[in-house]
Amino acid sequence: MEEWDEIEVPRNVKDIFVEMKNTAELMVDLAYSSILFNEEEMAEEVLELEEYLDLLNYHLMVHAVLAARRPKEAEQITSILHMAHAIDDMSNAAADLAKMVIDGVELHPVITEAILGSEEIIGKIFVSAESILVGKTLEELDLAANTGVWIVAVRRGKRWIFDPDGDFKIFPGDILIGRGTNTSIDYLKEIARGNIKVMGNE
Amino acid sequence: MEEWDEIEVPRNVKDIFVEMKNTAELMVDLAYSSILFNEEEMAEEVLELEEYLDLLNYHLMVHAVLAARRPKEAEQITSILHMAHAIDDMSNAAADLAKMVIDGVELHPVITEAILGSEEIIGKIFVSAESILVGKTLEELDLAANTGVWIVAVRRGKRWIFDPDGDFKIFPGDILIGRGTNTSIDYLKEIARGNIKVMGNE
Repeated sequence: MEEWDEIEVPRNVKDIFVEMKNTAELMVDLAYSSILFNEEEMAEEVLELEEYLDLLNYHLMVHAVLAARRPKEAEQITSILHMAHAIDDMSNAAADLAKMVIDGVELHPVITEAILGSEEIIGKIFVSAESILVGKTLEELDLAANTGVWIVAVRRGKRWIFDPDGDFKIFPGDILIGRGTNTSIDYLKEIARGNIKVMGNE
Repeated sequence: MEEWDEIEVPRNVKDIFVEMKNTAELMVDLAYSSILFNEEEMAEEVLELEEYLDLLNYHLMVHAVLAARRPKEAEQITSILHMAHAIDDMSNAAADLAKMVIDGVELHPVITEAILGSEEIIGKIFVSAESILVGKTLEELDLAANTGVWIVAVRRGKRWIFDPDGDFKIFPGDILIGRGTNTSIDYLKEIARGNIKVMGNE
């Protein structure tokens, strides 16, 4: 990620808020993924996102405080700060998880078991050349709706793409990191292997 | 929920851990839902789950500390406590959100906009008598994989069912509270209205 003074921050409270919520949720997914796959680069991304979130939080506070005019408004605006604080707490917890990976802490095997044994798990999905995913964008595929899997990162060769956009096009050999139930991850794996040729509600 | 001394806690570290992670994630979904729909009963459930999570955390610590024999084990076990702490932090943040609802804080409209404007949103899905969902269990339907929507609660008449099990059977008139993308929530709404008669990868 670039320097913070070059980063564009959304210009209104709503957009900053949405960005904060999305960022915190991405951080949690990436933190669990970094632990599961022992991926330091992914853990570093979580910490960079934490700084970005702090910046967003700062802008939110400035906007919010400037907006307060009357007592009723002040109470409402306090609710925004309250929620922003909770989101920030969640992101800090995600960063704490990521730090374990960066510090090279010896992890107990039960940690991996817990991440893989919960209702929503993290999966690694290899895309073969025969898959219908190849050459399509994430927007076209809409994997969240069609397979129940939320893509949080993609490994392409030696490079990581975190939180890929809708116009991200899938290549053969890509490794997708996704969050979903066991069933939905397995389903997407079959599609990615080329064993299933039609997807979701098509 | 019953008294804590009647509550069964999983008997091994892995199962306690999985239960903690699932509970914290449910708390976050329910907390946002309680804010969005201003549902005090749902917010109360979040606080009860927080107490349950504290109990789980206590049992986890007892188990973990008893298991430590050698220094290498101690480091690994510390990693469990570290992760449990992060999960607990996330659940506390969710509880902070729920408390806003219980305290009747005047919420700024931008809070609702942010919850409805983020990548994963919360939706309210009304089930009509014509829907293919009626009479099927959540396990049969596997909505997470087939529609991308995660059901966190169901409103049946005057009653809330939180975190419904796989054998929960959908009735006409049920209101499902689900987490998913805009597209997936809209898709499930069409199924629930009876406008779409085939679902997902059938």
